[in-house]
Amino acid sequence: MQQTSMVALEQRLQKLEALEQIQQLKHRYLNACDRKDVEEMRACFAPGPILIDYGAIGVFHDRDSFLELYTRLACQPNVIDLHHGANPEIVLESATEARGRWALYYFNVDAQTGLTRQLGGQYEDRYRLTEAGWRIIETRSRIHSTVEGHSLSTPSQ
Amino acid sequence: MQQTSMVALEQRLQKLEALEQIQQLKHRYLNACDRKDVEEMRACFAPGPILIDYGAIGVFHDRDSFLELYTRLACQPNVIDLHHGANPEIVLESATEARGRWALYYFNVDAQTGLTRQLGGQYEDRYRLTEAGWRIIETRSRIHSTVEGHSLSTPSQ
Amino acid sequence: MQQTSMVALEQRLQKLEALEQIQQLKHRYLNACDRKDVEEMRACFAPGPILIDYGAIGVFHDRDSFLELYTRLACQPNVIDLHHGANPEIVLESATEARGRWALYYFNVDAQTGLTRQLGGQYEDRYRLTEAGWRIIETRSRIHSTVEGHSLSTPSQ
Repeated sequence: MQQTSMVALEQRLQKLEALEQIQQLKHRYLNACDRKDVEEMRACFAPGPILIDYGAIGVFHDRDSFLELYTRLACQPNVIDLHHGANPEIVLESATEARGRWALYYFNVDAQTGLTRQLGGQYEDRYRLTEAGWRIIETRSRIHSTVEGHSLSTPSQ
Repeated sequence: MQQTSMVALEQRLQKLEALEQIQQLKHRYLNACDRKDVEEMRACFAPGPILIDYGAIGVFHDRDSFLELYTRLACQPNVIDLHHGANPEIVLESATEARGRWALYYFNVDAQTGLTRQLGGQYEDRYRLTEAGWRIIETRSRIHSTVEGHSLSTPSQ
Repeated sequence: MQQTSMVALEQRLQKLEALEQIQQLKHRYLNACDRKDVEEMRACFAPGPILIDYGAIGVFHDRDSFLELYTRLACQPNVIDLHHGANPEIVLESATEARGRWALYYFNVDAQTGLTRQLGGQYEDRYRLTEAGWRIIETRSRIHSTVEGHSLSTPSQ
């Protein structure tokens, strides 16, 4: 096996590492949404101009304007959210650029009223390798289904 | 480190790449089901004789006969589906054969009536490495739980 | 490329293999819960003193005392469960120790009454590499949301 083969091996390894890091980035973001850890959410996006297109929630061109709205809407004691990612399809476009499609299961229950809302949809994302690691530079969600209900018992947090 | 070690490293790398590709194959299939992209679904199965055993939906021995039924049943404007895979357990049996177990969360809402149906179950799959990449050659779903309901509001797509 | 680089390549490969094995361990555990395969669940935990803190279900210091309760509560014909893991964030702390955070989607339907209960929460786990492979040595679940309902039709298993 020659020098070139070893370089090739390392490039293949780097690709797998990048796929792992990008999936973990999105998982960290979704878990932070559920835990309402706004600083952890912020660290998942690149600083500077990005695109966050969350449909009816709004379109944002930097992370801070999105997180300001998120804090106002979601960081309330009665808002209990689940954001579960499924079916990730990550494609590396270069050593520093990638795109990803994810299915989203979102579930919200209002702890005061017991009203529930379930959304199903897909994310289309772009990621970039920055000095601080992979970051989200573009994320668009499209909701396929919306179902409302109510819990038969008092929800608990 | 000798020649043999480098070959061993590459074999270990190939296994991880195969696991990644097989998971992405199933994710691509499930996302295509949600987007009703029948051509993308078709490309996830091997051409030629395969086994698709979806229980009450039917048993099919080639991809085209399944996709014909799927198109008739699911590709309707009022049918809104979520197919989310969870808990993948992929086992490589050789360099070109693998099997996998997945949990399935399926949710359907009828956009006209608001009736909902949630299924939980497991897939047992077999995959083969073809010239075009890893493909599904056998998939059997078993449904554990079926729950029906209705949305309190008009569902939207 | 020198000797040291090859060692470094193998260490990076080992990390990816460990991440894959730990995720598959948890997936195997969750699927075994759904299939009520108590022996497979047992093999996912390390023997000897461990911590299983499942909140309202109880706190256990060895796998057998947890599985005894689990068998009594869950291994009943009318209990149909889904345990779907999402958003895994696995961090390797050494070659033999790791921790992980997961989101949990749990859904139960009583096959006799049609009553349903959906839980959303997060697991915080610790894993150890034993002679038999990676095993769970600590798992704590925290439930964020609890929603109860009922199926409009008779559930089926």
